[in-house]
Amino acid sequence: MALKIYTHPLSQPARAVIIFCKLNGIEFEEIVIDLLKGQHKSPEFLEINPVGQIPTIVHGDFKLFESHSILMYLASAFPGVADHWYPADVQKRAKIHSVLDWHHSNLRRGAVMYVLHSYLFSIFGKPLNPQAALEDEKILNSSLSNIESVWLTDHGPFLTGRDKPSIADLSLVCEILELEVLDENDRNRILKPYPKVRKWIDDVKNATGPQFDEVHQTMHQFMNDLKQIE
Amino acid sequence: MALKIYTHPLSQPARAVIIFCKLNGIEFEEIVIDLLKGQHKSPEFLEINPVGQIPTIVHGDFKLFESHSILMYLASAFPGVADHWYPADVQKRAKIHSVLDWHHSNLRRGAVMYVLHSYLFSIFGKPLNPQAALEDEKILNSSLSNIESVWLTDHGPFLTGRDKPSIADLSLVCEILELEVLDENDRNRILKPYPKVRKWIDDVKNATGPQFDEVHQTMHQFMNDLKQIE
Repeated sequence: MALKIYTHPLSQPARAVIIFCKLNGIEFEEIVIDLLKGQHKSPEFLEINPVGQIPTIVHGDFKLFESHSILMYLASAFPGVADHWYPADVQKRAKIHSVLDWHHSNLRRGAVMYVLHSYLFSIFGKPLNPQAALEDEKILNSSLSNIESVWLTDHGPFLTGRDKPSIADLSLVCEILELEVLDENDRNRILKPYPKVRKWIDDVKNATGPQFDEVHQTMHQFMNDLKQIE
Repeated sequence: MALKIYTHPLSQPARAVIIFCKLNGIEFEEIVIDLLKGQHKSPEFLEINPVGQIPTIVHGDFKLFESHSILMYLASAFPGVADHWYPADVQKRAKIHSVLDWHHSNLRRGAVMYVLHSYLFSIFGKPLNPQAALEDEKILNSSLSNIESVWLTDHGPFLTGRDKPSIADLSLVCEILELEVLDENDRNRILKPYPKVRKWIDDVKNATGPQFDEVHQTMHQFMNDLKQIE
């Protein structure tokens, strides 16, 4: 059954899904939806996903959106995905669910809105909002502080004390790496107080190999192309 | 193994967890954490849940927070929970995950913040914010509109076209019923444009019987007691 992934180089949840597929030998066709031209709100795309969000997958005739749900689905529906990505054990799995649920209203909300309000809205032709960015940075800081002191434990290098990465590590690190669209000084200032978070990002990069860098390269290439047009 | 649920009458996700246990014959001890006195930030509670959120469960020596994760855990760890609550089928389950993930940044965000900014902050001794409430209401309206046109389909009366309720129905209806702390006119004004949503709320109430009303009664009792103190 063919798998299609609707994506965009600026979507961090889409990157997590694509890296997951590449790491686990899941074949897919990548279809870029041009967010800057509003293609995610086109009648054709709304037929596939009526709320117009990236990433979306179509697997045979099954359509699905929300990146955490997609990662859980892929880990369950495709044979051969190693257990550490989405453990079958009920309690280990529950901890992965918990960090992913927490992600929505904390790290994701802080990181996405900070990047939009402080930089990315300008490339969508919308005004920046430094005042809102200050509030977003508080949520981002509080989230990074919780990753540092709650979700990273002494039991193992990955989230919830695991010794190998799960879909939660992939999702949250891709979220944080969206900060790479920002000025380097700004990004370093935000991450500096969190040494365990910085080590964990490196551990996830090392555990996910060239596929991780390769997919993030599409984001950097997109941003470079954009700057040349400007 | 004993199950403890840390809860509060004003927490809609806690109500969803408690109704789920009552409906499925899962025995538990309920421990009310006094949010108004800041007991969720006490050293004793932070030992149990370091981010200080309600609901939290302790099952034997296993601690878990985030209500969606708790519902999924209970449905998986306790024998005898009917499949419709959290289907084993990978695609049906993925759709439940998708609506629950969507819930975080849409219905939950709109409903919680609208109720806080327009009314509930006053009982926590914080100022109301009518301007923010206007923005929250936009998110709430857009979310109700998506439930009406995307998540409720013609295939069945419950979310994602199911013929019996899932943990997603329970979670989202409990979220919407938090609007019952508001003035009746305000609540009716918000729900009026969404006839399918109103019918679905009734369908969920009817499918979950006296346990649903009984647990919501604790919210009404709490609000009545509070008004008498005022």
